[in-house]
Amino acid sequence: MSEFAVVELIRTKRDGGSLSDAEIDWLIRAYTQGVVADEQMSAMAMAILFRGLDDRELSTWTNAMINTGERLDFSGLSRPTADKHSTGGVGDKITLPLAPLVAACGVAVPQLSGRGLGHTGGTLDKLEAIPGWRAELTNEEAYRQLEDVGAVICAAGSGLAPADKKLYALRDVTGTVEAIALIASSIMSKKIAEGTGALVLDVKVGSGAFMKNLDDATELARRMVALGTAAGVNTTALLTRMDTPLGMTAGNGLEVAESVEVLAGGGPADVVELTLALAREMVQAAGVDVDPAARLADGSAMDVWRRMIRAQDGDPDAPLPGAQHVEVVSADRDGVLAELDAMAVGVAAWRLGAGRSRKEDPVQAAAGVRMLAKPGDRVQAGQPLLELHTDTPDSIARAQEALVGGWMIADQAPESTPLVIDRITA
Amino acid sequence: MSEFAVVELIRTKRDGGSLSDAEIDWLIRAYTQGVVADEQMSAMAMAILFRGLDDRELSTWTNAMINTGERLDFSGLSRPTADKHSTGGVGDKITLPLAPLVAACGVAVPQLSGRGLGHTGGTLDKLEAIPGWRAELTNEEAYRQLEDVGAVICAAGSGLAPADKKLYALRDVTGTVEAIALIASSIMSKKIAEGTGALVLDVKVGSGAFMKNLDDATELARRMVALGTAAGVNTTALLTRMDTPLGMTAGNGLEVAESVEVLAGGGPADVVELTLALAREMVQAAGVDVDPAARLADGSAMDVWRRMIRAQDGDPDAPLPGAQHVEVVSADRDGVLAELDAMAVGVAAWRLGAGRSRKEDPVQAAAGVRMLAKPGDRVQAGQPLLELHTDTPDSIARAQEALVGGWMIADQAPESTPLVIDRITA
Repeated sequence: MSEFAVVELIRTKRDGGSLSDAEIDWLIRAYTQGVVADEQMSAMAMAILFRGLDDRELSTWTNAMINTGERLDFSGLSRPTADKHSTGGVGDKITLPLAPLVAACGVAVPQLSGRGLGHTGGTLDKLEAIPGWRAELTNEEAYRQLEDVGAVICAAGSGLAPADKKLYALRDVTGTVEAIALIASSIMSKKIAEGTGALVLDVKVGSGAFMKNLDDATELARRMVALGTAAGVNTTALLTRMDTPLGMTAGNGLEVAESVEVLAGGGPADVVELTLALAREMVQAAGVDVDPAARLADGSAMDVWRRMIRAQDGDPDAPLPGAQHVEVVSADRDGVLAELDAMAVGVAAWRLGAGRSRKEDPVQAAAGVRMLAKPGDRVQAGQPLLELHTDTPDSIARAQEALVGGWMIADQAPESTPLVIDRITA
Repeated sequence: MSEFAVVELIRTKRDGGSLSDAEIDWLIRAYTQGVVADEQMSAMAMAILFRGLDDRELSTWTNAMINTGERLDFSGLSRPTADKHSTGGVGDKITLPLAPLVAACGVAVPQLSGRGLGHTGGTLDKLEAIPGWRAELTNEEAYRQLEDVGAVICAAGSGLAPADKKLYALRDVTGTVEAIALIASSIMSKKIAEGTGALVLDVKVGSGAFMKNLDDATELARRMVALGTAAGVNTTALLTRMDTPLGMTAGNGLEVAESVEVLAGGGPADVVELTLALAREMVQAAGVDVDPAARLADGSAMDVWRRMIRAQDGDPDAPLPGAQHVEVVSADRDGVLAELDAMAVGVAAWRLGAGRSRKEDPVQAAAGVRMLAKPGDRVQAGQPLLELHTDTPDSIARAQEALVGGWMIADQAPESTPLVIDRITA
């Protein structure tokens, strides 16, 4: 028997009312147990999309989701912990150089990650391009690696916030993914359950991001920072541009190679800038007084990277797989590359085989897009702009299609916009 | 494989867009066949509750629901047809005297009805208080009775708009019943499929009605009239008050007895007034020039009633069952009965056994409330106001509870309000 009549709870939210803490606790528990049916929860999710959740409701909702699963505890480590979460963008390989860099500063980084779906790649998919590397660790292995190496990037276990897993799958098929409160609780329930002491959120905004406008991105950042802070996690957020891809690559192996360049002291300026900006936030939030730029320059971040990859059976020295086919897209006139759209590049990389449409699909390690010019660069007619890498050449035509209208050469350079737009704190 | 991505359709409606005719046709068909899942349709229903359906969408939606089932055809009858639908009220027995009265005017009345749920009674439940009477007829029996007697009140077959049956059950458990467009399409899909030539809608508004305010009731009436008209059914609507019960009885057998009083030329003034008002609308909409008041006065309506009951194996002369227990509620002071709330009386009758909570529950033929005074009547302290009839005396306390605050005696008579508030035509 149900403790609350779920139809009454749906009506309350639908009509703009608030749900009590007891009602939310019951709803999440009952949904996870199958007492509240999918068709009722999807109607509730749609009502929340229209009506929202206030701060108290959202905090209770998030805690209720955490309480359906286990909570990790890294407080016994000899170092403070800090984690990062990005809302997802094209070419966003930042976790790869960031985790070892922050660990090199003396802060442990427990990065429990997911796989990619759609036009944005997943961190685990990228690392799996490294021969031998494995994503699945037990909680004990992850804990030991954090103590020994200082950084771990591995698959989030199914034990964290199982309610979120069920609810996310439901939202995905019912047009209710876009509810900001539900996005915030989905991300933060897993990050809080993960047990990190500090958290930095990279909230992307722009054509290639989930949040297309600044107001929505700011609202999402504000609510996640509030949730983290209320749960005792020292949380800050950076709002960052995602109109054009990060760096010069979008694709699994291609992004690993670029990340290694950054760790070696090179790499594209935007990737270096964002890696350092996020590293400074994480180190500061963890209460450690070390300059990440120094640890990048002195090679200690690269040392941690190599130990981190080896600890998960990967070979940091093995050559990364190359694609069987490379097709070039060239400039059609002289001028300045004025636009290179993140969504167009992301969809092209996805179609070439770097991403998946369904979570059970495989991805290609070598597929993706290498950019040979970035917005603001001068180009000449016939000069190569993009390389399309794939092992499945019949995908090239559809990738080219995705790029139509996705780049533009003009007479004048575009106005340059800062990568980091805003910083949100409690 | 799905012809349309249902998530895209949900998003379109959620974001305030319009669905195309092809999309709506596919959605209703796919939902009926189980291709679109319940959790997707409930999210769509909630999106429609917030965003509505425009006139074209609503018309397409309604036709798509009709097309999932059979369509009856009474065009071969020797008489024109007219039907009535009420959105439901307390003591609303109007169909019982109305159907034979309109038939006595030369218009055939194919009244396919449902059973009651909650605080409003169902027409079939009322007639089943008559010994022997049966609600279930084949389409052929109903057709023959319409030709021979001119009126049939029977159970709507499951062949009419099966999509509506499935969708209504879903809306009932997902807090999406209140979407006006979906209410309109639910009612009109069945009435149009039923094949009546003319239709009069009695849209109730007030405390005992589903629509509590005049704006919503007017909107519902307007949309149903538009749907009927577009489908070639001559449709009009009356908006009528449902703040206090209709007549002096609420309960199955009690309402049959009161209906027979009306057919015999007596009965409460409000029941007579509304019966004649609706009869005039139906007769006029069917294009027949006969005054229903004359057919009520000359006994021909009563003749049709007796033939109609007999045709369905009922005995119009058999005594109606009496309740085993009658409890009286008396006036607590001298004055004028200023208020007698329809919802309070409806819930009391329901609890006494006249109604049901779940569709598989039985109802008591003799249970209900008899009112001994109506708003505006002078009463004296100790004078009986209400009789509570039941075969289950342990229900009396909860019925009395429902009536607390549901009636009020004052010094002055309340302002009298007209029963028929408005008339809506195409």
